[in-house]
Amino acid sequence: MLETQALASYIVTNRIESVPDDVRHEARRAIVNYVGCALGGSVDTAVDRAIQALGPYSGRPTASILGRSERMDPLHASLMNGISSHVYDYDDTTPKNYIHPTSPVASALFAYASANPVSGRDFMEAFILGFEAESRIGNAVYPAHYDVGWHITGTAGVFGAATAIGKLLRLPEQEMIWAIGLAATQAAGLREMFGSMAKALHPGRAAQNGYAAALLARAGFTAGEHGLEGPRGFAAVQAAKFDLSKITARLGEDFDLRANTYKPFPCGIVNHPTIDGCIQIHDEHRLVPEQIAAVRVRVAPLVKDLCNQQNITKGLQGKFSVYHGAAVGLVRGKAGIQEYTDAAVNEPSIKRVRERTTAIGDTAVTEDQARIEVELTDGRVLTKFVEASIGNLARPLSDRQLDAKFRDQAVLALPSAQVDDVLSSCWRLESTDDVREFVAGTVPVPAAAAR
Amino acid sequence: MLETQALASYIVTNRIESVPDDVRHEARRAIVNYVGCALGGSVDTAVDRAIQALGPYSGRPTASILGRSERMDPLHASLMNGISSHVYDYDDTTPKNYIHPTSPVASALFAYASANPVSGRDFMEAFILGFEAESRIGNAVYPAHYDVGWHITGTAGVFGAATAIGKLLRLPEQEMIWAIGLAATQAAGLREMFGSMAKALHPGRAAQNGYAAALLARAGFTAGEHGLEGPRGFAAVQAAKFDLSKITARLGEDFDLRANTYKPFPCGIVNHPTIDGCIQIHDEHRLVPEQIAAVRVRVAPLVKDLCNQQNITKGLQGKFSVYHGAAVGLVRGKAGIQEYTDAAVNEPSIKRVRERTTAIGDTAVTEDQARIEVELTDGRVLTKFVEASIGNLARPLSDRQLDAKFRDQAVLALPSAQVDDVLSSCWRLESTDDVREFVAGTVPVPAAAAR
Repeated sequence: MLETQALASYIVTNRIESVPDDVRHEARRAIVNYVGCALGGSVDTAVDRAIQALGPYSGRPTASILGRSERMDPLHASLMNGISSHVYDYDDTTPKNYIHPTSPVASALFAYASANPVSGRDFMEAFILGFEAESRIGNAVYPAHYDVGWHITGTAGVFGAATAIGKLLRLPEQEMIWAIGLAATQAAGLREMFGSMAKALHPGRAAQNGYAAALLARAGFTAGEHGLEGPRGFAAVQAAKFDLSKITARLGEDFDLRANTYKPFPCGIVNHPTIDGCIQIHDEHRLVPEQIAAVRVRVAPLVKDLCNQQNITKGLQGKFSVYHGAAVGLVRGKAGIQEYTDAAVNEPSIKRVRERTTAIGDTAVTEDQARIEVELTDGRVLTKFVEASIGNLARPLSDRQLDAKFRDQAVLALPSAQVDDVLSSCWRLESTDDVREFVAGTVPVPAAAAR
Repeated sequence: MLETQALASYIVTNRIESVPDDVRHEARRAIVNYVGCALGGSVDTAVDRAIQALGPYSGRPTASILGRSERMDPLHASLMNGISSHVYDYDDTTPKNYIHPTSPVASALFAYASANPVSGRDFMEAFILGFEAESRIGNAVYPAHYDVGWHITGTAGVFGAATAIGKLLRLPEQEMIWAIGLAATQAAGLREMFGSMAKALHPGRAAQNGYAAALLARAGFTAGEHGLEGPRGFAAVQAAKFDLSKITARLGEDFDLRANTYKPFPCGIVNHPTIDGCIQIHDEHRLVPEQIAAVRVRVAPLVKDLCNQQNITKGLQGKFSVYHGAAVGLVRGKAGIQEYTDAAVNEPSIKRVRERTTAIGDTAVTEDQARIEVELTDGRVLTKFVEASIGNLARPLSDRQLDAKFRDQAVLALPSAQVDDVLSSCWRLESTDDVREFVAGTVPVPAAAAR
């Protein structure tokens, strides 16, 4: 089976009209969630520093960056959108393969659509197809690929961006095959970077390099034509075990957008059951932090693999610390963006509870679950078993909860008056004549101009 | 052992004055060989198409591309230098790790030095250190990394570019550690791309992404600090077996520039013993192609792994066909750039001999050797055993042979009158006050201006 060719053929020929309504609605939810994350993250230092470093190398500033007033060329804008939308680890996740799927695809598409006329229909068509290509390629190599240490959002993401931009460029099949090959040979991103700004670079580079792959392919820059399935191709090189049939099985019938989830907390998703349970304990018992003598959590072994950071001092590290998640849940009863700042990580009451928290990996606990014991100074022990964490496929965020999450983040970048306009036009994106107008609305109006 | 920190510390503190004279001379040889390859490859369609695709996204055109009159920003110029210098597979090789080491490092350095004032001393210092970092990181993961299918020139190359540009930017140790981490998390390139333009993209992207890694690190864009040795770092993720001690063993005493070789033929280096032997048979017997009934070669098994392309129609495929190498050696008695064009691959007399050539992988034959049998139509059988191929460490090209190779390639891009000037200033590069003047000399003077 030539998966590269089969996937290219599907992307080239498919149309949004053949996509079921529930999938199209899930695409809208993914875009709303994405734009909120991109706006929230756009004010982060990581974006400032990336613009400072690479701005002098930008081409003609024809493209917008969501949430920022600077303009850059569309490739650099893709990179910046990718960084901002992932930097708070608040974007979406497909639990079946641990990809954060929307960021690489939508970051490239919004950059493209801010510089070129694109209808909402064409935008959503490219998004749905790019998302599907990315997630299926991820399925084919998960879990071996992820387990060894690849950040699958970077590696699978570049395929999503390449195919989505390739769709907008109307690449014929041969060029789409090259675009997939050029994506394969740029697939990168290591889990070793978790806890640093470089993690957010991964979807950014995936968006930028996938976009460039499509441009190169259009110009006739050739690539190996078996980028996915070849003996030295993506799957064979980047996964000890893989199943390429997952790329093409029921293509056009099953859609991985249906397997997408939206995070209630801006941190590593495997921490969510612990946080969920600790917030429930907080709400039920209204503990004073000084009452807490010890916290013991039993979690899936993967949690300790991914989120074992201790002795931390940075907000970014807190995202990969199940101990910090437990502490903010118990101390503050919430885990929003303000709980993952440097200040929160160093706050004495949170630090104290964090340092009294221990975690045990237990194969009897699933990745959606957590067993929590809080021992109080008076000797009482409170327990909570979370069977299915909020935000997962069994307990999805509602459209209205997505609205609230959007607003919480968007106000970091935009005046409140602008936020609701952007949100409502975001839900209507598919019927927009020109996505440029939408993107223009996501850019902060300078104070002088607003006056 | 913290290899990332140790390597960063070495790069930050070392000075060219502590590098032995023979290594500094080998660095000059590497640069002469590189500039010749970049000039020769600069006229290739792959470079035209890359410029066509990405030119509209270039930033301010402050940098030169070797051999081209177009100007781009330094990051894009790094990419184009990387493509041109590798597209004919004629650049250097360190046989101990199969890296083509100079292209990723020098492609970034020449782009930087065409846009910023850099002395020849600083240029060569950064080159020697970047080369060493790249090759040692390659040593640590070779052969498992290469065997599984990574194009090590791309993956190790990004470290070379990051450290070399980081040296010119005078990054302190902390930022150099981040630059190495940002390089690690962008390391990419699949052997599946061999035989397509995408192979040459690998050193280009390595140069461009390594350069960007250094810029990002300088701006405080953080990365994981154990990019090389961490449990999810480069070595653990990209190699089933590795030996990190090779990164730091005798650092500052041993130099891998001493292990560098320069190709006499513009194709996969494992074909060279076969070509060498076939040229010897051609020169000794002056065969007419029609006399050749069959050609049988016994080669190292790796040759069939890398260079088994048959039924070929493109020059680029010929570079990975041991059969084509045998055919041009026997028919033309040479294997220069003109023997790897589409026309040469489709020439009937070459095609006929190629189709009568068979190859057997034999573990008793080393990668420097070949056993050749040519059966003639009159029943005679000519044999040749090549014990050590020309161009390898035991039979290196002399400085004068490098001059000849340089001229053969440079005339493709520059008027003959300009070629010898560039060549002689290339040998003197280390004593140049400003490398910009050298780079300016490598750019073709438009016909009108030359008049």
